[in-house]
Order: sequence, then C-alpha cells, then structure tokens
Amino acid sequence: MRINAWAARKPGAELERFSYEKEVGRLDVLIATKYCSLTRGDLGFIDNFWGDSKYPLVPGCETFGVIEKTGIMVEDLRVGDYVGVGYQVFSCFQCEYCKIGKEQFCQKQKVIGVNEYGGLANHIIVDSHFVFKIPPKLRKLDYVPLLCSGLTVFSAIKKVNPKVGMKVGVVGVGNLGHLAVQMLDKMGCQVTAFSHSKEKEATLKKLGARYFVNSIDKEELEREARKYDLIFSTSTAPLDWPVYLKALKPQGNLCIIGLPAEEISFPAVLLADYAQRGILGSYIGSRAEMRELLDFAARHNIKAIVQAFPGEETNNVVSKMRNQEIPFSAVIKLK
Amino acid sequence: MRINAWAARKPGAELERFSYEKEVGRLDVLIATKYCSLTRGDLGFIDNFWGDSKYPLVPGCETFGVIEKTGIMVEDLRVGDYVGVGYQVFSCFQCEYCKIGKEQFCQKQKVIGVNEYGGLANHIIVDSHFVFKIPPKLRKLDYVPLLCSGLTVFSAIKKVNPKVGMKVGVVGVGNLGHLAVQMLDKMGCQVTAFSHSKEKEATLKKLGARYFVNSIDKEELEREARKYDLIFSTSTAPLDWPVYLKALKPQGNLCIIGLPAEEISFPAVLLADYAQRGILGSYIGSRAEMRELLDFAARHNIKAIVQAFPGEETNNVVSKMRNQEIPFSAVIKLK
Repeated sequence: MRINAWAARKPGAELERFSYEKEVGRLDVLIATKYCSLTRGDLGFIDNFWGDSKYPLVPGCETFGVIEKTGIMVEDLRVGDYVGVGYQVFSCFQCEYCKIGKEQFCQKQKVIGVNEYGGLANHIIVDSHFVFKIPPKLRKLDYVPLLCSGLTVFSAIKKVNPKVGMKVGVVGVGNLGHLAVQMLDKMGCQVTAFSHSKEKEATLKKLGARYFVNSIDKEELEREARKYDLIFSTSTAPLDWPVYLKALKPQGNLCIIGLPAEEISFPAVLLADYAQRGILGSYIGSRAEMRELLDFAARHNIKAIVQAFPGEETNNVVSKMRNQEIPFSAVIKLK
Repeated sequence: MRINAWAARKPGAELERFSYEKEVGRLDVLIATKYCSLTRGDLGFIDNFWGDSKYPLVPGCETFGVIEKTGIMVEDLRVGDYVGVGYQVFSCFQCEYCKIGKEQFCQKQKVIGVNEYGGLANHIIVDSHFVFKIPPKLRKLDYVPLLCSGLTVFSAIKKVNPKVGMKVGVVGVGNLGHLAVQMLDKMGCQVTAFSHSKEKEATLKKLGARYFVNSIDKEELEREARKYDLIFSTSTAPLDWPVYLKALKPQGNLCIIGLPAEEISFPAVLLADYAQRGILGSYIGSRAEMRELLDFAARHNIKAIVQAFPGEETNNVVSKMRNQEIPFSAVIKLK
C-alpha cells in the first residue's frame, strides 16, 4: 500500500510531503496514525547528528493510532485496538539480550530514523512485537511522549532503583526532565529540579519537584555538594560535569539520559573523592519496561505538558524546537 | 615518645631522616614496624599531586608490624599481636556512613599523608579501630600491599559484584592490577590483562589471566569491542577511554581504580550505544572489607610480587618507581 508521510530529503532539510510503498507482513500491523510527537531526537535524526540517519528521513518515534489491519500471524492485537509505537521497531529475539527480555540491546535491532520510516505519516506498518496497547485512560495526546522519552527516562530510573526518601536531582527539565520529575516524585523520592529557566519553577513544583536550583548560578550549584543520591541529566547541552559529580553523595550516581554533542569530561579524582561515585548511561528500554511504564503512568497520571499542532505545521514546530520555543513536548495531530 | 622516620620536607623532595613526638592515646596502639610499602600513592603525596599533602611528609600507607603498647581503652588488640595499618587511620563513627560500616566515606576521616605520618619509620601510633590483625599465613612482606592497594581493588570489585564466568578486563597490570587479576580469577571470572608490557604476559597468566591484550596495539584493542562485563582500570596513565568503553558489553561497567592526572573524557553516546554502560569510581574500602580481604587472601593465597629493599634505599626505590623500574610492588624492610 501507499503511505503518505513527511520527510527530510537530506541532512537538516525542511520536511516535505513524501510517500512510500510498504505491505503488511505476516507479523506486522497497519496503524492509522492519530498523534505523533517531534522531539530533540527527531531533530538529531533530521540533522544526521549521530551520522547514521537514512534519507528520505520520516521522523516520529512516538506514535499513537488505531490498528486497521493485522498480519496473518498476529494473535495478540486486533483491528480497532488503540496502540502506540516507540523508537525501536525490530529485534532478533535470538541473541543473548533478546533471550532475557532486553531487546533494546539487540545488535540487530531496527529503529526509526536509521532503519525504518517513522510515525509522521497517515499510516505506519510495524512489527507487532513493538506495538503496545494503550490503556483507555492514556489515549490522549499528552501521553504520547511516554513512548520513547518516557521509556528512556523510566528505564534509566529503574536501572538505579531509587529508594523511597532518596534525594534526587533532575538537570534540564524539558521534554525528558519534566517526565523524570513526575516519575521520581511518584516513586517517593525528594526531587530537586535544576534548570536555567526560572520561569519553569512553579510548573515543576506542581509536577512534583520539592526544590528548584537555578543552574546558571554556579554558587547555588556548589552549595548542593554531597547532597544527592542520584542525579539524572536530561539536558542535551554540555553541563559543568565536575559540579554535578560533586553534588553526589559518596555512593551517588549521575545518570546521563540526554546526550550532549560535546564530550563528557571531568577529573578522575571526583569519582573517588572520599566516594565511590558513578556515571551511568541509558538507552530506551525493553518491551517489558514499556508495559510497566504504561501501567505506572495510568496509575499515577503521569503525562507530558504538550503543545499540539496540526500536520501542516511540522516545519514550524521544528523551527520552534530549534529556537528553544517548546518548553516541554510537541505533538502533531495527524487526523 | 620519639619516633624516627623518613620524610619529604617539601613537594618532590628526597626523603631524609626525621623524628617526631607522639604519645599513645587511650584508644591507640604503638606498633614496632617491620615492613612498609612504597606505592604510586606515596609518590603522589610526596609530590603533592592532589594538593593536600602536609610536610614534613612521612610516606607509608601499607605497614606491617608488632604491637608494643596498647592504650588503656583498647580491648581487642594485645602487645605482641602482628598487625597491619592501611591508608585510613581515623573516622568519626558518628556520621551516616560510619553508622553503616562505610567509614571510608566519613568526611572527618584522617589519612596518611594528609593528616598523619605514615609507616616509613621505626614505629607508628595509630587509632586501634584502624589496626588489623594479620592472619599467621599472611605475615610476610609479599602480603603488605594488600593493606591499601589490595583493599582498594577488593572494594571496587565487591561494589560491582562480578558473577562466576563473567568476562572481565584489568587494564594496567602493575601494583594494583596484578592483585586485581588474582582476585578476579579466584572469584571465577575469565580475566583478560591489558598491558603495554608484553614481557609481563607469562607472569600475568601464571597469576590467573586467561588472555593478554597488548594495549599499545589499537587494532587489537578495537577487536575487543562489546566483549567485557567489567573492566577495571588500574593505570594512572591516561587511557583511550572511548576504546575501553566500546569494549564493554551493553550493561558493562568500567571501574576506575587508578587515578590518572588527566581528565577522563569520552563522547556521551558511548554510554548509550545500544547500551546502558557505566563508569564507576572507588576509594579504599571499609574496615569490614579489609577483614574480608585478609580472609580471602589467606584462603586463596593472594599476594603481591614484591621487590624488597632495606630502609637506607628508600630514595633509590622512589627513583626506581619514577623510572617505571618496579614492575609490581616495592616493600621496605624496616627491621
């Protein structure tokens, strides 16, 4: 069938109308798309930031829609199901990681932007293993960012397994960070938001941050030394890594969720400064974590602060994102 | 009483005879020293590498000896006991870390080189809380390096809790690294030694390394990509951090034990390259870990490859260490 999408034809290009042919395979489902977000990750792919983008590039790593057709071997999804698709759309299910339910580490994985076209289209055809039923409560556009941004945050948090009462920081509170604040608060942590956007303070406190630190103010940052069990860095801007390492308690961990272009660098001694500190990376999440997240979000009403736009405004949204004019999340209404 | 020691009078100076007055406090013990090592850490203190050295500086963070006198409140140690002293010699026993048996994170801790004179002397007077009975089997000079080098390695290993069969690397196999190889082998791991000293290969294989990678050969290093559950960096030279991060499996950790002077730096994306990698620091170990290590070393016969020197040769040893002429450990025989 013919699928009508928006695509960038070369690195950094404006999105334009683009259509492609794809058929529903035996294990695939055809989804009529309803909402699709645009994130910093999409900008990265449009710009070939990681060097592995394929053009034409159809963005869209967080898509909600309704199933219109299922492949003959699909048993657990039906026509009419309300579903979501994230960033990963294939894994081998045979390697050592797939076998233990950590498909996100499969070396044969396929992801949107590199191997497949994304959800910024009227339809998307996806391997049913990576299509998730969306609970009724979550079938609104402000839950769309859970599918990749939310999953990446959730998986990073799960990895370090924060305990109730822990003092945690979230640095850079945009799309990823404002979801992290909510999740950590709901897990019983004492959350501090670090941001250079003082105007976000009231909103972040409503979302669950108990404290706000102005991250432009170096003195204010230095006063946080040795206070945090965990700090989640969700910014893609380069950070003052030493000051955040110093803000960790002796056995604290700095979890890198946002990926800055610049190298991370710091004096080695800060890891061992009467301490045993760590820096941890994270990468999307498993299918099991996605299901757990959808359940957790439904129970605790965790959702994004979304600005919604019609499909014709995609290029406008991209330029707003480039100009830092989207404080949290952007979602395109496709129909 | 008067204690006769060797000391550096200013940063980088040769060691010279030096004596100081100290009395045995109620909780202290007086130890007649027998063996004391010289390590890269001592060189760092002599040179004021970390900026917190106090002069005159008596080095010696790994000392064996026999108790000659005990303070009136000391109950668990007696005159004649064969004991060891490491790097840490005081903690408050009241803070949140001391209360959970992690005295190495106490902010009021005292350590040799910064707050106290070390073991390169005829005697040392130390708070009995940081004096450890040495099992009979371990009362030889090749076990001396366990007291700080060994403890630092052991604590770092315990933190990441390697499982039997895991593939682990040890980078830079000198004083710290050759102890790490033995401990990891005895814990059931498959150990690869990474070294630029090809002539160490046979020795390291005898100590328990199954494989040897020539760390000068970048192509050889690159062939190790995605193979390791854990890599322990024990080198104080700057490493090619990206190549070692890439050598980690998706959920692997790089444990920094040796502290290079240069900043650690790497592209953020290597933490999240279809992966959830970590970089972890470590700092000495707790008193409980010291006891566990001494027991573990006695059971598995873990000891250092030591070159021994008489006290008059301390400056010669320091210069040999500066010239990389001590392949593993150096111990001074004090009497």
